[in-house]
Amino acid sequence: YLVGWNCWSFYTPQILVVPVSGAPVFYTRYVDAPGVTLTTNVTAERVGAYPETYVQQPDRHPFDWVTADMRARGIGSGTIAVEMDANFYPVRGHLALVAGLPDATIVDAQDMVNWVRAVKSDAEVAYMRVAGQIVTRVMETAIEMVAPGVRQCDVAAEIHRTGIRGLEGAGGDYTSMPPMLPTGRGTSVPHLTWSDERFVEGEATVLELAGCYRRYNVPLARTVFLGTPSTLLASTAEIVGEGMEAALATVRAGVTAEQVEAAWREVITRHGLSKAGRIGYSVGVNYPPDWGERTMSLRPGDTTVLQPNMIFHMILGMWMDGWGYELSETFVVTADGPDCLASVPRGLTVKR
Amino acid sequence: YLVGWNCWSFYTPQILVVPVSGAPVFYTRYVDAPGVTLTTNVTAERVGAYPETYVQQPDRHPFDWVTADMRARGIGSGTIAVEMDANFYPVRGHLALVAGLPDATIVDAQDMVNWVRAVKSDAEVAYMRVAGQIVTRVMETAIEMVAPGVRQCDVAAEIHRTGIRGLEGAGGDYTSMPPMLPTGRGTSVPHLTWSDERFVEGEATVLELAGCYRRYNVPLARTVFLGTPSTLLASTAEIVGEGMEAALATVRAGVTAEQVEAAWREVITRHGLSKAGRIGYSVGVNYPPDWGERTMSLRPGDTTVLQPNMIFHMILGMWMDGWGYELSETFVVTADGPDCLASVPRGLTVKR
Repeated sequence: YLVGWNCWSFYTPQILVVPVSGAPVFYTRYVDAPGVTLTTNVTAERVGAYPETYVQQPDRHPFDWVTADMRARGIGSGTIAVEMDANFYPVRGHLALVAGLPDATIVDAQDMVNWVRAVKSDAEVAYMRVAGQIVTRVMETAIEMVAPGVRQCDVAAEIHRTGIRGLEGAGGDYTSMPPMLPTGRGTSVPHLTWSDERFVEGEATVLELAGCYRRYNVPLARTVFLGTPSTLLASTAEIVGEGMEAALATVRAGVTAEQVEAAWREVITRHGLSKAGRIGYSVGVNYPPDWGERTMSLRPGDTTVLQPNMIFHMILGMWMDGWGYELSETFVVTADGPDCLASVPRGLTVKR
Repeated sequence: YLVGWNCWSFYTPQILVVPVSGAPVFYTRYVDAPGVTLTTNVTAERVGAYPETYVQQPDRHPFDWVTADMRARGIGSGTIAVEMDANFYPVRGHLALVAGLPDATIVDAQDMVNWVRAVKSDAEVAYMRVAGQIVTRVMETAIEMVAPGVRQCDVAAEIHRTGIRGLEGAGGDYTSMPPMLPTGRGTSVPHLTWSDERFVEGEATVLELAGCYRRYNVPLARTVFLGTPSTLLASTAEIVGEGMEAALATVRAGVTAEQVEAAWREVITRHGLSKAGRIGYSVGVNYPPDWGERTMSLRPGDTTVLQPNMIFHMILGMWMDGWGYELSETFVVTADGPDCLASVPRGLTVKR
């Protein structure tokens, strides 16, 4: 996000040091370093490449080398904020960093960069629009393919193929979460992926998918039923649809995140339903394992004021006892209302 | 690996507590908890489900709730080993765990479970054999598709489709790293994924791919040249091939990891080449971002004695100044030698 580095190199420790004045210094593994100058604007003298002898060793850590280099460059003292909630900054690395910078005060950055990411530039919104067009195609493909007797993995295969082909002038990227397509009893829990079992007549399938363009993710969820759905599922789908319309009607710059959730909750409470979790969160540029940004959530107590070019995934997931229903939209906040990035009919898709 | 939980739930904190006596207790987010009893043998009373109010909040952490529950169950004291080098155990969670367990001594598990995973059961080897058959198909597809004028993303799309379809009786899974297909100058660095640019006549492409079955990954790398390769690339490919034969000829139960690397190094040194990095590592069951196990490496100084049913990815990556070449095999160690899991001709593939 800060320097344009896009590479699957984060499974070994890497760190970008952003001094208060002066250009950032990027530290990565020796084999990955030439790629930094090849693909970003970070110049060679600002790339620190730790030797291969530091990779995955029990008795030394890459940050031993990195902190020595930081001290030599004069950027290893003062107050240094680190991303303590980041997935690819493990405890062992943190301990090595603290030990290697005795003159520094290490504090938690508290997701500062994620908060900067909350309001997208117009260029970022344009990328998200492409990803929205991609997820539209992906969802159409998935809905068309789910049928009795078809293997789950074969649908997952076409989902990936469609998403990564992308558009004519804009190829797709890997999404930050794999497609999730829980089916039957699995629809009662989110985050299950797929198996090689076959779809079954008389069961629902939840499709929580995404399109990705240049690491920008647009998620979208729909539910398909093979056969004639129960009255309970059909009426839940109606209520959730009404709740979504109410919540989307609330969205515009100036309202708070919790006001959007309140509009949804008013509808479902009136119909006798309830939902414990949040109904949405900020999305954008990301790597696995998450397309969310861990900043704003659409839920009670979140008083963040919505601003133009914030982007949310509003996901209405009803995970019940043995069954479930999901419906979602990803939208850009504008002064006038929400601008949804995908274009797939809402509501339960019934395939008879 | 310990209880069979397979779900994309690890982007919010989760933890498995394994007491010295008694069954494990699994902690996960409220919405994911029903899936645990649905898909594993962990019984409901041994699942701790932290409330949605703890999810992604700046002022409280799920492990505040988890540690209170651990203390209530009597498993929150004594010496507790945690995985300090794990990607999905961030610093913030560790600090909450330590603060919440004042009666415990927290120590680093030093990848203990990863070391247990080093020797596979016969059932695990059988899964890896399936993944090996899958990556064979994936690589054949990729080699066939790479051609001048074809978009990189369209090849990546077919790679995903082929791998996730898998075999007739065994569907594929998402791999722990995305396909990497650096091309042209990009072949001089590993770990680049793909773009929507087109492949170009007169350039090399490195294909580092994998097959995955039930979370077991088998990686494989090959290099394709479109046109007539330079003498330098062709001779490097010859030398690397000779080095691989020498290294593979060394593999059998009883030799050390560094002996395997020494056989490779002897060959390339004789031909005037050198390589700084390790030439292989343990692979198996995994989630993104890595299919490696961060335990044994084929490199000088690693004196681990190879045992039957250990599985290594031997990857010979030569990243030179502006060009590169990769060749790899994933093999099971047996008493007699290596048993390679994929079946794709070695050497540089030249497409004219």
